[in-house]
Amino acid sequence: SFTRGMQTVTLIPGDGIGPEISSAVMKIFEAAKAPIRWEERNVTAIKGPGGRWMIPPDAKESMDRSKIGLKGPLKTPIAAGHPSMNLLLRKTFDLYANVRPCVSIEGYKTPYTDVNLVTIRENTEGEYSGIEHVIVDGVVQSIKLITEDASRRIAEYAFEYARNNQRTSVTAVHKANIMRMSDGLFLRKCREVAENYKDIKFTEMYLDTVCLNMVQDPTQFDVLVMPNLYGDILSDLCAGLIGGLGVTPSGNIGANGVAIFESVHGTAPDIAGLDMANPTALLLSAVMMLRHMGLHDYGNKIQTACFDTIRDKKVLTKDLGGNSKCSEFTAEICRRIQDMA
Amino acid sequence: SFTRGMQTVTLIPGDGIGPEISSAVMKIFEAAKAPIRWEERNVTAIKGPGGRWMIPPDAKESMDRSKIGLKGPLKTPIAAGHPSMNLLLRKTFDLYANVRPCVSIEGYKTPYTDVNLVTIRENTEGEYSGIEHVIVDGVVQSIKLITEDASRRIAEYAFEYARNNQRTSVTAVHKANIMRMSDGLFLRKCREVAENYKDIKFTEMYLDTVCLNMVQDPTQFDVLVMPNLYGDILSDLCAGLIGGLGVTPSGNIGANGVAIFESVHGTAPDIAGLDMANPTALLLSAVMMLRHMGLHDYGNKIQTACFDTIRDKKVLTKDLGGNSKCSEFTAEICRRIQDMA
Ligand SMILES: CC(C)[C@H](C(=O)O)[C@@H](O)C(=O)O
Ligand SMILES: CC(C)[C@H](C(=O)O)[C@@H](O)C(=O)O
Repeated sequence: SFTRGMQTVTLIPGDGIGPEISSAVMKIFEAAKAPIRWEERNVTAIKGPGGRWMIPPDAKESMDRSKIGLKGPLKTPIAAGHPSMNLLLRKTFDLYANVRPCVSIEGYKTPYTDVNLVTIRENTEGEYSGIEHVIVDGVVQSIKLITEDASRRIAEYAFEYARNNQRTSVTAVHKANIMRMSDGLFLRKCREVAENYKDIKFTEMYLDTVCLNMVQDPTQFDVLVMPNLYGDILSDLCAGLIGGLGVTPSGNIGANGVAIFESVHGTAPDIAGLDMANPTALLLSAVMMLRHMGLHDYGNKIQTACFDTIRDKKVLTKDLGGNSKCSEFTAEICRRIQDMA
Repeated sequence: SFTRGMQTVTLIPGDGIGPEISSAVMKIFEAAKAPIRWEERNVTAIKGPGGRWMIPPDAKESMDRSKIGLKGPLKTPIAAGHPSMNLLLRKTFDLYANVRPCVSIEGYKTPYTDVNLVTIRENTEGEYSGIEHVIVDGVVQSIKLITEDASRRIAEYAFEYARNNQRTSVTAVHKANIMRMSDGLFLRKCREVAENYKDIKFTEMYLDTVCLNMVQDPTQFDVLVMPNLYGDILSDLCAGLIGGLGVTPSGNIGANGVAIFESVHGTAPDIAGLDMANPTALLLSAVMMLRHMGLHDYGNKIQTACFDTIRDKKVLTKDLGGNSKCSEFTAEICRRIQDMA
């Protein structure tokens, strides 16, 4: 209806298979009549005044207006000194929380069933500070920076997320037995914030113990919150439990509703353009995006169609164990959405 | 025979279930007629001159003489400023390589089969440097220290280990895309050392990618070498794949043959003294020790008896899925060893 109107989303199709899976998502959104208007942008970094790498002004301007981005995979830059575009995007828009729900997909067999957890990674500091020095020849240091503000902010995000998503526990993941001051500060902020969320159970666990317990029984975990590098590791580990990066959605969340949702798999240049790619990770990221925008009904409909298609096993891309093309898999999801109407 | 003679090993029984599992190992060594004389020592830290924590002189003196230690679990110190004894031991004897073979145990069911890999962790620096500062109120930094010497040394250890243990590949695990200087230095040393081991395949992989691939298919890995914290994480993850810390051996190796082998599980105070503990991790660590000492036949015999007992499933401790006591499990291993003679 006209009163609800359309909302604009900045679409960054990305490299390699990025354009194919992006157009698959757009087709599926059209079938679902999702009220989204796409604004396509490229984000190859450019050098700004003073030689600083920055994302192109028209991409920045679009994101500043729309506040919401959907992003395909970007190829790793090879030029020396060229930053990771993923990191630059997180930084440019202060996307401080990386959120990855890892939920077992019925019909897609892995050694684990009933995984249903969310990793929440601090996305702006820690081991990713980028501060490094040569002390003397052959001796190098990297600085891990932990601040009270960023720690409190991510802890609050985790507890709010738990509360708003009917989840019952938050586990802080740390190595405060080794990094007593930095992880100690992070942990203290988690404890303080936990005091304000008596409805959510709070636990703390060493990162090594989490990894061990995770591969033995992931069903014991619910929401996990942690500093940057630990989140990098644990989010990939958890993705592995449910089938890998090809089926795992991801969102980078900032203040005031700003967010970029992205598939975290690679650009798969070997199959780019061959209509073989699996759009699931980007599609499920787009579903996260719809929920973030308050468009739950559209999100649920698309997710159901996607999961039904996978459970049904008749039309699957190669990596999911089938013989179908990306376009056929996409058409099958669209068909199911149209049948729902 | 007299010419071979007995070799002395410093035995640190440890806390909680430590003494029980240590005496189980001693019984099994006796049954195997392993030419080891045990010298028992306590390692509760004491304050030395200048207020520095140190291990007791008689334990230090025994280790300096014997060069080889076998260690049960130690309880975590609670006094503020009291160091982790595990870390203090590694430091005191410059045990620079932590080695953990993770091999699937036939008859002990986990979601994975045919795991057969070894994690080799740099044990002296990196994120464990202990250097931390408050920059200003609410801003803390921890320093990760990587040196050329320690990186080369651990890389050399890994390749030597691979060659001496009929292994065919070494994977360097890193995040040099983020910590370009520190992990970059580590990686460069691995590459350089790899040049001298053309018989061993060398690959490099991001830590997050290793974690993801590990839970999807651990059989693709062989020897993995990495900085301190990554090893802490990955060694526990891999232990989880084969059944946990109760069945995973570990060795800390220094220069000139100095080494301490240890079970890395906890002290399990809830079952201490109840004859319920599982001595497998300490026993398999003792088997690693025998091989380190060149006593392969004894090591093989004991390992076979232990694995046969587990595969047979008749006499198992509770954590292994049985109803037997620690002493019964131990006696069964001894019986099998005596039957071999
Ligand atoms: C691409 C890379 C810089 C990034 C990271 O290390 O954070 C990636 O692994 C991720 O998790 O998004
Ligand atoms: C006890 C603890 C200090 C230690 C570590 O973090 O290294 C432990 O986890 C290990 O792996 O031996």
